[in-house]
Amino acid sequence: MTQSDIEKRPEWKDFLAALEPASGDLAGFLQGAHIADVAEWLQEVEPDDAWRVYSTLEFDEQVELFEFASEGIQTQLLERISIEDLVRIVEQLPSDEVVDLLALADAQKAEAVLRQVDFERAAGLRELSAYPADSAGGIMTTDFVAVPEDSRIGDVIKEIKAEEGPASEEEIGVFVVDQNGCPVGFASDRDLLTSGIHTEIRDSMDTDLITVRTDADQEEAALAIHRYGLQSLPVVDRSGVLVGVIAADDAIGVIEDEAEEDIRRLVGTSVKEQTRLSILARVRGRIPMQALTVVGGLATAWILDRALPASDSASPSADLLRYLPIIIGLAGNVGIQSSTILVRAFATGEVTPDREKSVLASEIVVGLTIGILCGLTTSVVAAGMEGSESVWNWSFGVAVGSAITVAVTWASLLGCAIPMVCRRLGIDPAVVAGPFMITMSDISGASIFVLVAHMILGAGAWLPG
Amino acid sequence: MTQSDIEKRPEWKDFLAALEPASGDLAGFLQGAHIADVAEWLQEVEPDDAWRVYSTLEFDEQVELFEFASEGIQTQLLERISIEDLVRIVEQLPSDEVVDLLALADAQKAEAVLRQVDFERAAGLRELSAYPADSAGGIMTTDFVAVPEDSRIGDVIKEIKAEEGPASEEEIGVFVVDQNGCPVGFASDRDLLTSGIHTEIRDSMDTDLITVRTDADQEEAALAIHRYGLQSLPVVDRSGVLVGVIAADDAIGVIEDEAEEDIRRLVGTSVKEQTRLSILARVRGRIPMQALTVVGGLATAWILDRALPASDSASPSADLLRYLPIIIGLAGNVGIQSSTILVRAFATGEVTPDREKSVLASEIVVGLTIGILCGLTTSVVAAGMEGSESVWNWSFGVAVGSAITVAVTWASLLGCAIPMVCRRLGIDPAVVAGPFMITMSDISGASIFVLVAHMILGAGAWLPG
Repeated sequence: MTQSDIEKRPEWKDFLAALEPASGDLAGFLQGAHIADVAEWLQEVEPDDAWRVYSTLEFDEQVELFEFASEGIQTQLLERISIEDLVRIVEQLPSDEVVDLLALADAQKAEAVLRQVDFERAAGLRELSAYPADSAGGIMTTDFVAVPEDSRIGDVIKEIKAEEGPASEEEIGVFVVDQNGCPVGFASDRDLLTSGIHTEIRDSMDTDLITVRTDADQEEAALAIHRYGLQSLPVVDRSGVLVGVIAADDAIGVIEDEAEEDIRRLVGTSVKEQTRLSILARVRGRIPMQALTVVGGLATAWILDRALPASDSASPSADLLRYLPIIIGLAGNVGIQSSTILVRAFATGEVTPDREKSVLASEIVVGLTIGILCGLTTSVVAAGMEGSESVWNWSFGVAVGSAITVAVTWASLLGCAIPMVCRRLGIDPAVVAGPFMITMSDISGASIFVLVAHMILGAGAWLPG
Repeated sequence: MTQSDIEKRPEWKDFLAALEPASGDLAGFLQGAHIADVAEWLQEVEPDDAWRVYSTLEFDEQVELFEFASEGIQTQLLERISIEDLVRIVEQLPSDEVVDLLALADAQKAEAVLRQVDFERAAGLRELSAYPADSAGGIMTTDFVAVPEDSRIGDVIKEIKAEEGPASEEEIGVFVVDQNGCPVGFASDRDLLTSGIHTEIRDSMDTDLITVRTDADQEEAALAIHRYGLQSLPVVDRSGVLVGVIAADDAIGVIEDEAEEDIRRLVGTSVKEQTRLSILARVRGRIPMQALTVVGGLATAWILDRALPASDSASPSADLLRYLPIIIGLAGNVGIQSSTILVRAFATGEVTPDREKSVLASEIVVGLTIGILCGLTTSVVAAGMEGSESVWNWSFGVAVGSAITVAVTWASLLGCAIPMVCRRLGIDPAVVAGPFMITMSDISGASIFVLVAHMILGAGAWLPG
């Protein structure tokens, strides 16, 4: 995303300047900024500064900030906010967001808040918080307007105006229900605007309703919204009674999350906001996939050892080559992880050109750490497998382990450098972050592995020439 | 998606029954079905039946069908529809969809349609079709309502009512522009509903506007809609004049497409609707990634051959092991492709339990075909590389090639069978479609490769025991 296209908006560096105590005009700066941007910037500053920014905002903007902020920032703010202020915020937020927010708060604080909000709303919130977070019930809001079939449009509009708080602001239209509370039709705000005020709503409503049950998966709900082109999706309980509504913009979030989930699964690590995490957190997130690869590779080496004739045990080349699957797997994984993280981070604006160097450096450290961990493990197992019953073959183990460490570090360098070079050359970095990346890291990883292992084994005679 | 959750909707088998000439009530059936479902079903039937369904629909539903249908179905319908009928359809569709639709039609037909629609609209459509399809200009609609700042709400509502066709139906609110046509504010339909009709719109509008330029990337536009929680995003030209609007529901499509694109890149093939394509089309789509793997693997084998000492050339085990990277790469690719295709197809309802068997069979044929192609290539190159200068080592080549064919076919079977078994056991198939799948196919692929190659080389003495 090039910032020039979203025009004349304050940027991160302007925010930093406004944060300086010397600037003296934080309030003025914040008025010109979009709260979604402020919420993003807060992720990069100290908690004290984040709280100072929050306290400087007008009340309406504080409410918005809670809507846009990441869970991390929400948690930070919840620690410092007074119960009284939190109650006022909660009264303005849609019920689905209140439930998510209170789940992050200290249990006592959440309970204190629930005791102070309007009784009926508190009961609704408690009910809502009982649904699993990834079910339709977990993402629906209970702030919606439902009217009987014979309501006149003018009265429906009056009812919307009379609603206070979020229900009058959510752009989700109006649902028409029968005497049991089951949904029978839907009228969008545009339908209400373009119908005469004396018309009965049954004459302006769309009766071809799609509904989901509260226990449906959130992805199912999001896909239904997308598939049927809905503005909002009514959620019903077991007896078909309308209990909540999912707005289309919540569906965008779910689809993004599910796509993110698919990518995470394919590359074995979360790719969102990775460059903002600590080295330790990144290694921790990426090690399970590598551990699986090492275990799988060692199993393969063992099977190959059994399957191949014993007469070959005199060939150190064959011994080394049995460990190729480990390095091919590891180098491919690390390369594809680094490149996918970078490509996504470029696309979402998470990594701007001025952050490139530090991101490259930290990715190499992550790669080195993963390389050392996997190398050490392999060293020990290989020394045991390749040694005799009483004497472990330590020189072989160390050679294989060190070669893995070098090759994995190289793969993470490659995985970062190739997308960065592409961006400079004006090539879409995304085109290289797949098969091309894997092939590059496979070839170079395997070569580095064999060369380094041989060098360490000190078998000068083996090297070509 | 379990069908039981989207309640009481007609299903594919009901549609098939209604299609039978004997049923005689296609029209009645279609009235009870959602057009989005009909659009999906049409992908599975013969063009003649699709046309029969289309012709049976009421005019409004025909318009909707064009909105929901895939490009394939749109193209089919466009071939048969008369110019006169197409003009009537086009008058009801939002301009961005008209542009996409006419791009699919025969050039002469499209031109004939443009000559018959309202002059001003035709000029707008021609302009719109000049934007690249993946730019903000390419996905925006020009059907929006823009009013001056001093308009009274009542008059704005009248203006919306007076608009005919799509502009009065798109749920995108109203934009407020200055005398130059630059956007200065936005009022949602809900804002209009809840304000007094004598209020000036400048008092009800949101002035904190986000805009994008027509040449911005479509993903940037979609991310802005998501990031800022917008209902619609105004698109401006170089001089800042409002020329179009992107609706939030179009952003869902873009985000889905981009996610699909990321996944396609990672697994080297499109995963959407793959199970509906012919075997040939599937092989063609998946062969480039495998070709890259074979080339990379052969390069690795060559490098290893150079890097390893000549004294080892007497070891057939080492020779075979040099080809491990090819099989590890291929088996991993094919396995992850099959499993990702299946997991997505399960999640979107593309593969229902009754289609499982035929999907499994066709995936195995796809795997076998890819295996034969890659095996043949490797056979020839390996026979050359491992032979002497004058005599190619054909027995080695055939052994390696056959082993690759068997291992790749096995990987595609595994890639399908594991998700299917998971679904039966009630485990989320998605959890196995990543690192676990790769590890499984790596281990079993490498073992099968070595065993088959040895068996073919007839080196009975090599086998264990």
